[in-house]
Amino acid sequence: MRWAVILAGGVGSRFWPISTATRPKQLLPLASDAPLLLETVERLTPLIPAERIFVVTSRALAPALAAAAPALPSGHVLAEPRPASTLPALAWATATVAARDPDASVLSLHADWVVGDQAGFRAAADTALSIAERRDLVVTVGARPTRPETGFGYVVPGNKLGEGAFTIATFVEKPDAARAAQLMEQGALWNTGLFAWTARRFRAEIESHSSEVAAGLRALDVGDGPTFYAASKAVSVDVGLFERTKRGAVVPGDFGWDDVGSWAALLRVRHADLDGNVTVGQHVHVLDTDQSVVWSEEGTVVVYGLTGAVVVQGRGITLVTTADRAPALKRLLDHLPPDLAGERGA
Amino acid sequence: MRWAVILAGGVGSRFWPISTATRPKQLLPLASDAPLLLETVERLTPLIPAERIFVVTSRALAPALAAAAPALPSGHVLAEPRPASTLPALAWATATVAARDPDASVLSLHADWVVGDQAGFRAAADTALSIAERRDLVVTVGARPTRPETGFGYVVPGNKLGEGAFTIATFVEKPDAARAAQLMEQGALWNTGLFAWTARRFRAEIESHSSEVAAGLRALDVGDGPTFYAASKAVSVDVGLFERTKRGAVVPGDFGWDDVGSWAALLRVRHADLDGNVTVGQHVHVLDTDQSVVWSEEGTVVVYGLTGAVVVQGRGITLVTTADRAPALKRLLDHLPPDLAGERGA
Repeated sequence: MRWAVILAGGVGSRFWPISTATRPKQLLPLASDAPLLLETVERLTPLIPAERIFVVTSRALAPALAAAAPALPSGHVLAEPRPASTLPALAWATATVAARDPDASVLSLHADWVVGDQAGFRAAADTALSIAERRDLVVTVGARPTRPETGFGYVVPGNKLGEGAFTIATFVEKPDAARAAQLMEQGALWNTGLFAWTARRFRAEIESHSSEVAAGLRALDVGDGPTFYAASKAVSVDVGLFERTKRGAVVPGDFGWDDVGSWAALLRVRHADLDGNVTVGQHVHVLDTDQSVVWSEEGTVVVYGLTGAVVVQGRGITLVTTADRAPALKRLLDHLPPDLAGERGA
Repeated sequence: MRWAVILAGGVGSRFWPISTATRPKQLLPLASDAPLLLETVERLTPLIPAERIFVVTSRALAPALAAAAPALPSGHVLAEPRPASTLPALAWATATVAARDPDASVLSLHADWVVGDQAGFRAAADTALSIAERRDLVVTVGARPTRPETGFGYVVPGNKLGEGAFTIATFVEKPDAARAAQLMEQGALWNTGLFAWTARRFRAEIESHSSEVAAGLRALDVGDGPTFYAASKAVSVDVGLFERTKRGAVVPGDFGWDDVGSWAALLRVRHADLDGNVTVGQHVHVLDTDQSVVWSEEGTVVVYGLTGAVVVQGRGITLVTTADRAPALKRLLDHLPPDLAGERGA
């Protein structure tokens, strides 16, 4: 049967001051009125029912995430004893699935994406799972770039495998602007993190290529999560598996994928008014203002005569910055007094 | 003896959202931690003691103004029954002074100015009073322009009268930018509203030139304030007296006068940090920001990566605009819902 594993451990600071260590991005209603995690679950359920969805997160976040996705069965929020990047999380979750269903195929994704075309997303996921199941490959879904983004990794498709899949020619991690434009032109795809594999093939590839977690999985066969983490090393699934395997494939997809990397990304992913403004909150007013994000969870915010502004109010804090600066929020937090910036995630 | 009359009736909206109809600009601590009215009184007292200072304002504001200037004797805050521009206010207050001291000379000024050089201000006021007393003239003090301001009236000095005074060649009301630059070059002065006259000469000039209030003053001789206002018409002292009299004089002064016409004016009148930012409030933080005004009476405000921004927080409202737009706040208030904009002054 098909299962899904949602990675939801992030505690970023890119949505400060609204996001905090206990209310991270995946719990914020960034794309609609629902938290991103709930949207992620609802995006999946026409393809994979809630009973077969697992979430992996930190111990601190597990209760809040379980509350935000009440359709998930009890015990389906897996709490990592420590953060260890994506390969240990996916290895543990896939092994947990395999213990219940040795013939499982697994779709893996993140809790904090925004997707514009839900049906398109499911079609790409379905294709990726089918390729993983029929061809016995580990599959990544590549999103067709809409801009020469320098903040993402790219996957370059190789030869056609049929059924919508290609071999993987190479991966390119966070290129500079010129290289990103070049990659976009030559048909490279954004390496989204939407993956598919059978539990059996995933385990076999890890045994062959991923010493960081292979011993942990053997310990897990007779132990538990903490046993697994004690024997595993932090490594990403990209580096620890996809860049090493000879059984990788890529499925191109085009479903309005966005990782919503900063407040400025709301200009892309949320409905904007005719002036290109995204306003969220009951008491937000804009005049002679365009291409701006105004988000208020508290008082009245009035923005007058700005272009490309980002104004965010919540938790007694008002942030005023620009769309250009919003992606570099870390620099700001590094300069703020610890009691103020300390509210951010790790 | 010398007396002073402070005009303090304004209920502008230029400091929205902090200023309101009951807490107008003259009650705000715009230049220091003290309300402008209190600073005005303290600026005067080395020259004219508090016992000889009157304030003219509206009935609505009178209690708050009396509270803000406790050094003034009871009954020295005169409450107009209706707003009627500056000549009726000054005629009434001067007549009130004359009833106690027929030989009085009167200095007239506004409650909502900022003055950089207090001693220089008093020197100019002293000169103006001396000219008024010795030469029997009505005197205006002109401030030497520091920029080709289009929002002010200008007074052009004529021939030298000696003792620091000149005849008045002409007045120019709110010129365009080119004319303002030209006026500045030819030695024209800002028509500040700092005036001096003897009560006797002022009454005589009004009898000769100011029909709008002359009948009112005759009624006041046997009546009271309401009697005076019932018989008077609204007119400014500039139009109703200075532009008509043949006994006008101008005294140039240079004492860092500013009428603080908008939030942006705080960049001129308050101490700025090395990046040119003026920040007011316990919990204001700026980074990579310059030439900006940040004023918070409430929560934490963080401004990151802006130039020329104006951010004001108070009364549950946050205003984000630019120094360029701040002088045009009225346009914003005209577009806001009445319940929000309605908190502004008239």
